[in-house]
Amino acid sequence: MTGVTARGRGRPPRAESADTRDRILTAAREEFSERGYDRTSVRGIAKAAGVDPALVHHYFGTKEQVFAAAIEVAFAPALNAPTAVADGPQDQVGERLARFIFGVWENPTTRKPLLAIVRSAVNNDTAAAVFRRLVASQLLRRIADQLDLPDAELRAELAAAQLVGCAMLRYVIKVEPLASADVEQIIARVAPVVQGHLTGP
Amino acid sequence: MTGVTARGRGRPPRAESADTRDRILTAAREEFSERGYDRTSVRGIAKAAGVDPALVHHYFGTKEQVFAAAIEVAFAPALNAPTAVADGPQDQVGERLARFIFGVWENPTTRKPLLAIVRSAVNNDTAAAVFRRLVASQLLRRIADQLDLPDAELRAELAAAQLVGCAMLRYVIKVEPLASADVEQIIARVAPVVQGHLTGP
Repeated sequence: MTGVTARGRGRPPRAESADTRDRILTAAREEFSERGYDRTSVRGIAKAAGVDPALVHHYFGTKEQVFAAAIEVAFAPALNAPTAVADGPQDQVGERLARFIFGVWENPTTRKPLLAIVRSAVNNDTAAAVFRRLVASQLLRRIADQLDLPDAELRAELAAAQLVGCAMLRYVIKVEPLASADVEQIIARVAPVVQGHLTGP
Repeated sequence: MTGVTARGRGRPPRAESADTRDRILTAAREEFSERGYDRTSVRGIAKAAGVDPALVHHYFGTKEQVFAAAIEVAFAPALNAPTAVADGPQDQVGERLARFIFGVWENPTTRKPLLAIVRSAVNNDTAAAVFRRLVASQLLRRIADQLDLPDAELRAELAAAQLVGCAMLRYVIKVEPLASADVEQIIARVAPVVQGHLTGP
């Protein structure tokens, strides 16, 4: 690997390997975000990261796999959080899930990669499949597992739908007054709905 | 207008004007759907419709205006429906709104243009603004107007968020079991939530 040098940056090959993977992932996220899944190429990601395309292939494989890796990084807090969301009193799981989702969207550093993922998933079936597999299944299924109800997965998805819809209208489409409303006000209204889907009759 | 002839189709100029507008709108919808807002051009729409770009500009104006017109056509039933949705018993407005939204998405002929609009709106700020102005405001505000509550608009948006999220997860991301669930089962679970947002305490 160290034989593949950065393009025209003059970095020493050894110093490179430490953060190359991160640089590729950051570049990938920005490329997917700016161009969408279809127009992003491994070559373009490599160029943005200042590395040889062979290095991208070596670390991640295909474009689909780079995308999956970029999602995993963006969702690393999310994929660790479901335990925290699912743990604790069951009658407050709705509020914990709502706080977690709005927390990710309200944070500018996590909002950008999320937006990139949502855009790619909405526009491309391959990206949608990756999104579905990694996020929807892992996040939703973990919450569903804690519910111990026969229709737990559908419940988790309908709960998620309320939060996904809020995120779409507030952060992506930016419909007013929702886009400017105080986030605590929204959580106060939405948490009982999420709770109802998850544990209601 | 009749001086601008279709490209290489050999249609008589007179027969053209009758359906040219429709053909341009159909082509526009397909172009926006397949390429997304960014990569769609007035020239590309004109080519797909078999007309001169000047004709597209004449009928609709800029790309943004063609997009707005395409949305308006796609949402023509939707923009007439809010009256029907808002009319009738207030304690069933949630179910009427849910049935209306799922009805549009379940119908293959209305789903495709909707998907095109959603994709464009998610990917492009100009398209999002058009979407917001035409659909969100008109559809949601009409429902809000019937509610006669101080926070009616926020209520309508949170209700819409539940339905938008369901549509995203079921029709766009295709998360299971939601994607294959019986639509009546979903409506039965979602209508009370929509109702709660609109008229609840």
